[in-house]
Amino acid sequence: MQSGADMDMLQAGKQVLASQPFSALLGAALTRFDREGTELRIPIRDTLKQQHGFVHGGVLSYAADNALTFAGGAALGTGVVTSEYKINYLRPAIGQELIARAVAVQAGKSQAACRCDVFVVNEGKETLCAIAQGTIARLGAAPTAA
Amino acid sequence: MQSGADMDMLQAGKQVLASQPFSALLGAALTRFDREGTELRIPIRDTLKQQHGFVHGGVLSYAADNALTFAGGAALGTGVVTSEYKINYLRPAIGQELIARAVAVQAGKSQAACRCDVFVVNEGKETLCAIAQGTIARLGAAPTAA
Amino acid sequence: MQSGADMDMLQAGKQVLASQPFSALLGAALTRFDREGTELRIPIRDTLKQQHGFVHGGVLSYAADNALTFAGGAALGTGVVTSEYKINYLRPAIGQELIARAVAVQAGKSQAACRCDVFVVNEGKETLCAIAQGTIARLGAAPTAA
Amino acid sequence: MQSGADMDMLQAGKQVLASQPFSALLGAALTRFDREGTELRIPIRDTLKQQHGFVHGGVLSYAADNALTFAGGAALGTGVVTSEYKINYLRPAIGQELIARAVAVQAGKSQAACRCDVFVVNEGKETLCAIAQGTIARLGAAPTAA
Repeated sequence: MQSGADMDMLQAGKQVLASQPFSALLGAALTRFDREGTELRIPIRDTLKQQHGFVHGGVLSYAADNALTFAGGAALGTGVVTSEYKINYLRPAIGQELIARAVAVQAGKSQAACRCDVFVVNEGKETLCAIAQGTIARLGAAPTAA
Repeated sequence: MQSGADMDMLQAGKQVLASQPFSALLGAALTRFDREGTELRIPIRDTLKQQHGFVHGGVLSYAADNALTFAGGAALGTGVVTSEYKINYLRPAIGQELIARAVAVQAGKSQAACRCDVFVVNEGKETLCAIAQGTIARLGAAPTAA
Repeated sequence: MQSGADMDMLQAGKQVLASQPFSALLGAALTRFDREGTELRIPIRDTLKQQHGFVHGGVLSYAADNALTFAGGAALGTGVVTSEYKINYLRPAIGQELIARAVAVQAGKSQAACRCDVFVVNEGKETLCAIAQGTIARLGAAPTAA
Repeated sequence: MQSGADMDMLQAGKQVLASQPFSALLGAALTRFDREGTELRIPIRDTLKQQHGFVHGGVLSYAADNALTFAGGAALGTGVVTSEYKINYLRPAIGQELIARAVAVQAGKSQAACRCDVFVVNEGKETLCAIAQGTIARLGAAPTAA
């Protein structure tokens, strides 16, 4: 059961996501946002695909990047930016929805190290299709990209 | 001066990019594609931004990912996919155009290691805003994402 | 409880590690090696430190790299090499022993994607000090470094 | 031609390296250290190898990690630590000496983004065997590992 504080935090996170035009273009929704984890969901449409009909790697990257950022923000409790991350693509993403789940593994004063799993949901079944790891920095402590 | 073979190769690359719906959504154009380098350009529109008015990190990631893939494809001379990459965001991307330039540093039988620089062009001046490094795999030798 | 097959696998893994002169130089021991996970332990001696008395990052990197390689080898069931990895250092490593635990998150025909946690043990207490993620390739499918 | 200031800087860097017991164990020498680049050299001995007679990946990682750190230190002009990096192994390292060359691509107030090329020298011929990219942080702004 989520506490009232968690629900307030999720609402605040949804507002941040809504203020990102690129997230709106991709149709991303924030479905969890607390210190134990962050979840971002993206319905798969044809415009998000590459030439073989799979979800484009750039969409998986966006999902991982943004989920990592929110996970770092939940841990650091402030405005943050992604400093860097790496992603491994594991399988073609074929299905109806992407889910990126991220968590801060460690958080210090100025940055947090986070991990993310990206799943594709096909006919109700989740399959891991990418994994990521990165550094989220407190705003002012690093460059600003996402 | 580009040779006829290079121009044919660029035309072939442009067709691949045109067949990626997500690349069309972002408005990406392939402006160089040969064994010495690949260049991808994206005009910056408001829909590609995040909440602070900078280009969203997901767009920089897309640009790096796709430029790395094309650079690997030029080196391996075949259908390829990005296996993995990492990206460091260096500065907020503010301007009128993104340029991602990538090159294969080494190419073997089944994969190529590539590097990419992402620049933002503001009033005619190019500024480096992200750097990336990754592995591009020959199709069939690795998972398929981009 | 470990099965006889697991114990045979651990013995085989110990022989591989023993045949690496650099692993002997660092004093590494393989303490788990099966498809569910790999564990590498290194007693901390002064020669493994940097100028501030912490374990040198190069030792943490070695531990992560080698644990990732063994985890990939357990998953692929064959001779393997590390193709690439990334590591985030989280905290200074101060204590008596390093433990690197790795697991293959996904394994295909030619490569496996693996994750690793590196802990430092200080007076019996484990603390996470680095996290890593990388690609392990079947021998012959990639370059050979570790 | 190196200026007197550069020679003083190189001497200061050599003292830092000499104060790292692990660098002494590996036999590393700092042969360049200025804002335009850093060079670290390691004579290849049998104790630095893996089971196939190649230099162990952990040694290449150490070389890349430490060269990145020095490059970041030269750019930031202060005590630094490696926050994170990634490395791609390109070819088996066979020869008499390793050379790691690193440079800061961008430096801000609290961190620098750096790149490194690792070469193996075999009978006088240099061959690129690994490439790396990472973040070096000003001391106090990040965890401390190398």
